[in-house]
Amino acid sequence: MINVGINGYGVIGRRVADAILAQDDMKLIGIAKTGPDYKSKLAIGKGIPIFASEDRKNFDGAGVKISGTLEDMLGQCDIVVDCTPEDVGAANKPLYEKFKCKAIWEGGEEHELTGKSFNAYANYDSAKGARFMRVVSCNTTGLIRTLYPLQKEIGIEKVDAFLIRRAADPAETKKGPINAIEPEKELPSHHGPDVKTVMPGLNIETAAAKVPTTLMHLHYVNVKLSKKVDKDKILSTWKKYNRIILFSFKDGIKSTAQVMDYARDIGRSRGDLFEIAVWNSIRLEGDTLSYFQAVHQESDVVPENVDAIRAMFDIESQEKSIAKTDKSLGIFSR
Amino acid sequence: MINVGINGYGVIGRRVADAILAQDDMKLIGIAKTGPDYKSKLAIGKGIPIFASEDRKNFDGAGVKISGTLEDMLGQCDIVVDCTPEDVGAANKPLYEKFKCKAIWEGGEEHELTGKSFNAYANYDSAKGARFMRVVSCNTTGLIRTLYPLQKEIGIEKVDAFLIRRAADPAETKKGPINAIEPEKELPSHHGPDVKTVMPGLNIETAAAKVPTTLMHLHYVNVKLSKKVDKDKILSTWKKYNRIILFSFKDGIKSTAQVMDYARDIGRSRGDLFEIAVWNSIRLEGDTLSYFQAVHQESDVVPENVDAIRAMFDIESQEKSIAKTDKSLGIFSR
Amino acid sequence: MINVGINGYGVIGRRVADAILAQDDMKLIGIAKTGPDYKSKLAIGKGIPIFASEDRKNFDGAGVKISGTLEDMLGQCDIVVDCTPEDVGAANKPLYEKFKCKAIWEGGEEHELTGKSFNAYANYDSAKGARFMRVVSCNTTGLIRTLYPLQKEIGIEKVDAFLIRRAADPAETKKGPINAIEPEKELPSHHGPDVKTVMPGLNIETAAAKVPTTLMHLHYVNVKLSKKVDKDKILSTWKKYNRIILFSFKDGIKSTAQVMDYARDIGRSRGDLFEIAVWNSIRLEGDTLSYFQAVHQESDVVPENVDAIRAMFDIESQEKSIAKTDKSLGIFSR
Amino acid sequence: MINVGINGYGVIGRRVADAILAQDDMKLIGIAKTGPDYKSKLAIGKGIPIFASEDRKNFDGAGVKISGTLEDMLGQCDIVVDCTPEDVGAANKPLYEKFKCKAIWEGGEEHELTGKSFNAYANYDSAKGARFMRVVSCNTTGLIRTLYPLQKEIGIEKVDAFLIRRAADPAETKKGPINAIEPEKELPSHHGPDVKTVMPGLNIETAAAKVPTTLMHLHYVNVKLSKKVDKDKILSTWKKYNRIILFSFKDGIKSTAQVMDYARDIGRSRGDLFEIAVWNSIRLEGDTLSYFQAVHQESDVVPENVDAIRAMFDIESQEKSIAKTDKSLGIFSR
Repeated sequence: MINVGINGYGVIGRRVADAILAQDDMKLIGIAKTGPDYKSKLAIGKGIPIFASEDRKNFDGAGVKISGTLEDMLGQCDIVVDCTPEDVGAANKPLYEKFKCKAIWEGGEEHELTGKSFNAYANYDSAKGARFMRVVSCNTTGLIRTLYPLQKEIGIEKVDAFLIRRAADPAETKKGPINAIEPEKELPSHHGPDVKTVMPGLNIETAAAKVPTTLMHLHYVNVKLSKKVDKDKILSTWKKYNRIILFSFKDGIKSTAQVMDYARDIGRSRGDLFEIAVWNSIRLEGDTLSYFQAVHQESDVVPENVDAIRAMFDIESQEKSIAKTDKSLGIFSR
Repeated sequence: MINVGINGYGVIGRRVADAILAQDDMKLIGIAKTGPDYKSKLAIGKGIPIFASEDRKNFDGAGVKISGTLEDMLGQCDIVVDCTPEDVGAANKPLYEKFKCKAIWEGGEEHELTGKSFNAYANYDSAKGARFMRVVSCNTTGLIRTLYPLQKEIGIEKVDAFLIRRAADPAETKKGPINAIEPEKELPSHHGPDVKTVMPGLNIETAAAKVPTTLMHLHYVNVKLSKKVDKDKILSTWKKYNRIILFSFKDGIKSTAQVMDYARDIGRSRGDLFEIAVWNSIRLEGDTLSYFQAVHQESDVVPENVDAIRAMFDIESQEKSIAKTDKSLGIFSR
Repeated sequence: MINVGINGYGVIGRRVADAILAQDDMKLIGIAKTGPDYKSKLAIGKGIPIFASEDRKNFDGAGVKISGTLEDMLGQCDIVVDCTPEDVGAANKPLYEKFKCKAIWEGGEEHELTGKSFNAYANYDSAKGARFMRVVSCNTTGLIRTLYPLQKEIGIEKVDAFLIRRAADPAETKKGPINAIEPEKELPSHHGPDVKTVMPGLNIETAAAKVPTTLMHLHYVNVKLSKKVDKDKILSTWKKYNRIILFSFKDGIKSTAQVMDYARDIGRSRGDLFEIAVWNSIRLEGDTLSYFQAVHQESDVVPENVDAIRAMFDIESQEKSIAKTDKSLGIFSR
Repeated sequence: MINVGINGYGVIGRRVADAILAQDDMKLIGIAKTGPDYKSKLAIGKGIPIFASEDRKNFDGAGVKISGTLEDMLGQCDIVVDCTPEDVGAANKPLYEKFKCKAIWEGGEEHELTGKSFNAYANYDSAKGARFMRVVSCNTTGLIRTLYPLQKEIGIEKVDAFLIRRAADPAETKKGPINAIEPEKELPSHHGPDVKTVMPGLNIETAAAKVPTTLMHLHYVNVKLSKKVDKDKILSTWKKYNRIILFSFKDGIKSTAQVMDYARDIGRSRGDLFEIAVWNSIRLEGDTLSYFQAVHQESDVVPENVDAIRAMFDIESQEKSIAKTDKSLGIFSR
């Protein structure tokens, strides 16, 4: 039983906490938060201990019982998953080192912080015994999920991907734009290099723009394959991987909105879609494959975090860990 | 055991179907649909029989097994819940009469279709033995939920409410506007009279505008009470009713987005909020109460449909039906 | 000829600058900015001198010629219009005092800063000889424009208004929400008291919510009049005031989007609508009037700033100043 | 003097009408509309004759003076510009033939309708003497504007473009989605072949998705050039063409919102941007060029329509027509 603590209880932290609770080989010690709000009240309602990551007094008078400080939590943990906001988490490294906790950071941090980045399909074994690990971001995870199977089973010469990014998460109401399209000024965008932290040899370039929606990212991916194959080969390759889910325009899945509606309909908690949604109307022109995929930015990295923990403690093989995680989260071939 | 069929499997039909499946005194005979899509595939996956409400051939080649026609379904039903699109359902009345089914329509139909409109808190007993009943719309249900307790326990002289309506449901991607505010041209709007179909004596006027969001309606309600009371009286009155949930700006519930995030966090299927969300920072100035409430248009009428069925067959008292429905759907005092 | 400087060159500053350029009794000395961007380049293109309001070095290497510092500009001005961002402008008061400039602030500042707030229709004469003046905000100006005529010609007992606020201006892409409705937590909202800084005796209460659109605010206004009148009296009263423009749903003006389209179609620079747009399908029930109006937050205060200048220097009567301003900006009875 | 009629008075028709009014070698006979609304009232206000394109009685009682029927208008025209909604215009061809009018259709119609498609830069001379012509769509025009100069002066091997399309025009409030990204199901999208109707030999492929904004389309364009050049060569090539305008992130042009703000600031009627906006932070990697451009869907085709008329009557050379059109519309090197 691995004792897990979670530092940060926002979009990702809450989901990783729920996922840890669903594992039979992990124990959730608690979560750390800077201050009280409805999320802390709901955590208490679920029986999750809360630790104060800043001043304990922040919680005074809020009616939220605190079980101690972040340090108190770390003292009980084998590993901490750092789900603090982008660029905040790096500063916690010395603390985690002091408490001799292993630690996982999310994709908002730089690869250099850990020197190792993780995806369960692509490099599970590389995490064995690692002390510090980084689970790559939602967009990077999305790209790796569909590219890794292609690379492994067919081979990839070159990838060009365009990412339409959702501008804010559903509950993140301060961010815009409300009515504009915002190109990402860096050309190429940082997503390509980020994929390479997990798939080092891949020849990939990306560009991106931000649009006024909260639901999902949409990727348009062009892949020059190493050899000619037919569409069935592509689709059957992806079908072997449960964290990819194929959709059809004919079934009425016309946009990210219907993908999310599907996720709600299958009874997923929070309406999450851990899988990468790929439209099956792919195009093959010679050796070049083109496809659309949608990435649920709030949840696709959740199973990766669970697997990263098992890999870092080397308690299960890649295959078994993925199978356990998938079963616990309701991910199966549909 | 009441045999229930559902005609229409969109936003409301799917939720009522799930709610019927959760009742121990009802059996879901099946759902009727015009054609196949991802929703029908998911219904099949849940073991729900599908009946063709138009031409059976619509389903040919779609890989969706059909259990018969709408008429076949009606032949097995004691009652049908008509969840077809607005203004479509009325035309089905002769068919339901022919099959001697009781029937419930939703708030998109006119009161005159049934002559009786329903809300579980306000007029449960009026539905006893009724053959045809209309469950009022999401907005009307929202208004009644918070007004009925005030009227019953304090008394109401006059209500003025302004409704900011969401323009489309989350999966309804054809509707706009994308960037505009659209006042409802009728002054007063039809919502006031619609409330009176359930609370006949109420002195209420409403106006409305449509805005580019998919999440919830927001109501601003001004109530002139029959007597002066203090804020505690108002809040404690509402707290007796589980289908009202109180929120606080201080807890970080700043907009409809955080209300929906809360609903996702408590593990509700589809992230639904059956309750009406009321901000507890109400204003009392003399005998005049002002408050904001948010209405989850996709789901607030779901428990009302369940109770309407029990009322129409007179198998439970108001109190017991509401308690059964609430328990089955996870609605309790929070 | 009054020498006018403008401090701040964003949404309001640029429009006031253009309006000053259109007056025959005012001279635009220049505008002050914190740093260079496309707006400064366009100002240069129009021949408007730019002064550095912070460090001159901010402009180094940007290819934008600077005519001096803010202090240099103030030295040449009889009056400065402070169009800096909300809550920034107050700190400039000592500087304006030092340079013996009169000054106007916008509605983002508190009434207490100047002790005097301005609307050309309601209290032009109160500004005569004033050294410091505040032109009230876009929403407050919108309310006063339609309420003052009613108060003057009919009499008002009580006003209840609900404001649906646009969340961001068109070019303000950092602000959200993208998909939520955000009630304003203060009940009543500050807009009512703000109207009273110009119409002191008025009995008015307001509430507000923010929605994801950039175009205009929408107000729903309920007015209890001092006496019964007919609809023609209301409409003919408003028609006397050119800064009110009446629209009809029948003509296809269904939302704020079509109002803005109208403004673009009449050839207004930037597509601005200086007038308050009122839908003519007003409701009169006894002595109670209800109506919808839309407020172009970017531009409705522009003519007020021009008139405030004339009033403060007492160079024209109310009637003549308004007539001059209206003519220069293309505001006339339509 | 060429007598021009315009059939359809929506987004494009109104702008083409204004552009015709600004030409010294064309006369606007009038515009044809199906019924009355605010747009017809404003046309009357500008002195533009209105003709009834359907039943004259549609205009009865609307206070809009009608100068006759569509046929009456055609009888006076040398050429008609068909600006009716997508897929409506084709049916008008026999009528235009009957009245021996030349005719121009917009990009919503198929190339096959005319057999000739037009862009002023790319194939002006091909329209000489043509009876029927099609001006390609906003997106296609946008692509041709920046690709043609590259092809002519450098040479193009291959183009891959991704188009993020605005979902609705600003005044088009019925269309969604409000909160979703909608991939275009055809892969590749029709835009590539459409470019080839004007630039027949070009090797181009496109894909597209629709997003909830009303302002502009955003294109991400990848061009494999025929030879290596440096960035200056690219930028200087584009600078020779006035209908391209270069923007810089450094100047604060971060999204389509600031591009539109710029257009409003330079005093363009309706805030239109006839030019294609290109961000100057292009990327060159070997012989491959990548860039972002934004297309103002409401107006970029307007100058093309004017030039098409001159070309069809062969009254000016390409160079002179473009110069005349640009001068009349305020298009010049900035």
